[in-house]
Amino acid sequence: MTTRGERARLAILETAMLRSTVDGLGGLSLGNLAAELGVSKAGLFAHFPSKEALQLAVIDHAAEQFRAEVVEPVLAEESRLLRLWRAHELNLVWKGMGLPGGCFFTNAQFEFDARPGPVRDRLTAALDAWMEFLVALITSARKRGELREDIDPEQLAFELHAFAAAAAYQSRIIPDRRGIAQARAAGLSRLRDLAVDPTLLPEAS
Amino acid sequence: MTTRGERARLAILETAMLRSTVDGLGGLSLGNLAAELGVSKAGLFAHFPSKEALQLAVIDHAAEQFRAEVVEPVLAEESRLLRLWRAHELNLVWKGMGLPGGCFFTNAQFEFDARPGPVRDRLTAALDAWMEFLVALITSARKRGELREDIDPEQLAFELHAFAAAAAYQSRIIPDRRGIAQARAAGLSRLRDLAVDPTLLPEAS
Repeated sequence: MTTRGERARLAILETAMLRSTVDGLGGLSLGNLAAELGVSKAGLFAHFPSKEALQLAVIDHAAEQFRAEVVEPVLAEESRLLRLWRAHELNLVWKGMGLPGGCFFTNAQFEFDARPGPVRDRLTAALDAWMEFLVALITSARKRGELREDIDPEQLAFELHAFAAAAAYQSRIIPDRRGIAQARAAGLSRLRDLAVDPTLLPEAS
Repeated sequence: MTTRGERARLAILETAMLRSTVDGLGGLSLGNLAAELGVSKAGLFAHFPSKEALQLAVIDHAAEQFRAEVVEPVLAEESRLLRLWRAHELNLVWKGMGLPGGCFFTNAQFEFDARPGPVRDRLTAALDAWMEFLVALITSARKRGELREDIDPEQLAFELHAFAAAAAYQSRIIPDRRGIAQARAAGLSRLRDLAVDPTLLPEAS
């Protein structure tokens, strides 16, 4: 059962996540959030005693959403090659979706890359987890004979992630949003080149 | 001849460019800059009447450095294929170089991707110019028979840029800085696959 307190906490986290994609995770302000949510600043402090506590909770909140919307659906595929393709495709859906300022993670990771501390550590852990997930999918697809023997899993994971991360900002700063389609085509072409049986994958468009 | 006023202006722009890679272009403050440079705030205002005027001048300043350190050396190569490779390689040198918070452009483009206005417009123009430069190099290499006939110049430009943009933040947030080496390997492997004569390019490492 979700208590009233938990519901209030979730509403704060959701609003803070949306705001931070525009103003930055560093630009979050307990005062502005309280005003936007129509609650008292003291009420907000009861949930999050400091700005940093809020920032860390927002990262965990986004990670839970990413797990539900990307990681879990990927694991529903049986073929490891298709898992990898779905991981790329759903990551792009996540990056292109309705958040007002684009992908929460790429934004925040870029914003904090030069600011050491607990917030950056949490963001690094999220990126590490995603890269390890991709590497594990690639290794497993190779072991099952679905990807060529001679691929380097970490290099392929870097490339797939690079397409998605670049799309996350190019699709916003260059208004035609073609970046998402280019990132999809780039990942598909790479996987079709490296797959033992490319006909398992969608046709290149 | 560089006047004293021009030298002062350059010192302000250089400091502001370095600071903005850490604190963000939005985090620039005329007050903090004046303190860091040991000048009066009024003296700073004489050069830059507003924060936005300073931000725009910093973008132009970075673009001039990028032109001198990346674009001009690229044009010194005769082979169009080697121009393209040098463009990727020097872009990575620029991204991996000593700025305290990483690549000025990828940082600022990420920061402003959801903030419409003159600053974003100037950053969009800088990214457009770089993408058009890559597309022109690719088209010209294809026309001269140095790249395969069937490549899509805009798609290849997207991919090369994606490797570099991803490296710009991953090399900072994942401390081993392997991102730059992975981006170099990714670009080299892509170009060796698409070159009519791959022996013109360095060996894959």
